[in-house]
Amino acid sequence: MRREITGFSNPLIKQVRSLREKKFRKREGRFLAEGLRIMTEAREAGFLPEMLFLVKGQELHPLAAALEQEVISAGGEVIETSSDILSKLSGKDNPQALVGVYADIAKPLTEVDRDSAPIWLVAQAMRDPGNLGTMLRTGDAVGAGGLILIDDCTDPFSVEAVRASMGAVFTQSITQCRWEEFVLWLRGGNGQLVGTSLQTDIDYQACEYAAPCFIMTGNEAQGLPKAYEAECDALVKMPMYGKADSLNAAVATAVMAYEVRGQMRRS
Amino acid sequence: MRREITGFSNPLIKQVRSLREKKFRKREGRFLAEGLRIMTEAREAGFLPEMLFLVKGQELHPLAAALEQEVISAGGEVIETSSDILSKLSGKDNPQALVGVYADIAKPLTEVDRDSAPIWLVAQAMRDPGNLGTMLRTGDAVGAGGLILIDDCTDPFSVEAVRASMGAVFTQSITQCRWEEFVLWLRGGNGQLVGTSLQTDIDYQACEYAAPCFIMTGNEAQGLPKAYEAECDALVKMPMYGKADSLNAAVATAVMAYEVRGQMRRS
Repeated sequence: MRREITGFSNPLIKQVRSLREKKFRKREGRFLAEGLRIMTEAREAGFLPEMLFLVKGQELHPLAAALEQEVISAGGEVIETSSDILSKLSGKDNPQALVGVYADIAKPLTEVDRDSAPIWLVAQAMRDPGNLGTMLRTGDAVGAGGLILIDDCTDPFSVEAVRASMGAVFTQSITQCRWEEFVLWLRGGNGQLVGTSLQTDIDYQACEYAAPCFIMTGNEAQGLPKAYEAECDALVKMPMYGKADSLNAAVATAVMAYEVRGQMRRS
Repeated sequence: MRREITGFSNPLIKQVRSLREKKFRKREGRFLAEGLRIMTEAREAGFLPEMLFLVKGQELHPLAAALEQEVISAGGEVIETSSDILSKLSGKDNPQALVGVYADIAKPLTEVDRDSAPIWLVAQAMRDPGNLGTMLRTGDAVGAGGLILIDDCTDPFSVEAVRASMGAVFTQSITQCRWEEFVLWLRGGNGQLVGTSLQTDIDYQACEYAAPCFIMTGNEAQGLPKAYEAECDALVKMPMYGKADSLNAAVATAVMAYEVRGQMRRS
């Protein structure tokens, strides 16, 4: 059964719209995802929205119709509304005609099974939601297990990060923790911590990588703190042939991750 | 000599602010770059702004002071104004305290010297300014000669693209042309055209690359048109180990470019 909401001032609309802000996401333990492609990715990964918003009277794509049925079967709510109200929820002029409210899916470090994947990505104080979302997307592509967020990273469940992840926010495990917790956990088992840095002469293709390999990328402007670099089992750099001294953080992570994966499949 | 502008409604402020829009950039043949880092990159590459805007009364970084002197020596204008007006020019709440107006530096295809670099990047109908700027930044890092834009790409001289390029907009040659022109030019000399595609079984690490190698990446949502793929000397794909079927366009370009460069330095 669908429920209809027609008014902008409806309290549920206000509440859902508030999930565009981090403090409300934290308080509610929920986040937003938009668009059929991302929500289908979520569904295939086993995640259904608690609430599904769609435009009244609009013909549904078969995948959207299937999604609606599953949401209802699972006891979720389907709410139809105007395209103007949906635009307000999605914050885009051209709303993607589907918005979902999902329960928080962050995973505590203690539940991360490091041996379930050969590669893990670690982001330290990453500030740009597009970069974080792109790292998730890359992690999925390269077969990483998930993303571990250290220090004050931008929220991986922001609308911008979820969008840039293209759904990988649902297929990669996401863990937020302090550096000390991470190191304690990491050293309690096997795992190679690899940092990308400008403070090294070791070429990224000259290093031997071993699973589970934790590829750590630092803040966009500052890079990794010195103490974090000192903890790494290997510090490597990509050759720079031009004037610039660095790559975009998400790009550097991807070049590293494909190098590590390429080595692993050759050996 | 500095000139001071105090009013928001000053015609020059309006004119410079209009450069945030593509149609005015085209009309004026000028574009904006912001911030000391990017403008220093420009200066080192031999490009000075015709006009330099800075905040009145603010102490200048030595590099900014040097830039100011060079702008004056070259006959350019230095304009001091309030931080509010500078914010209006830069479109950011936290302006980077320097804004420059540069003359258009796009290069016609006939002036591109393909043998001057082992790698060239080609973007087809790329829509996201962040992706285009990131491609320029990656091109600089990997030692590419420049970026060739085919079909209806987003403007590489937009404020967003310039910012994402981190100054590589000044160190990479930038050429916009139609596909037919590009092919005619390409086939008039040596050069390997490599496309990334989902419609191939050839692994990107199984292909042999030769300089000058033109790495072509298609539109974010559609990929390359079939006819363009047919023209490629090699179509390759990166292995996808997860649920997703693609990487972010700028990320895919970077993984490819570092693979090509890595092969070239081993041989």
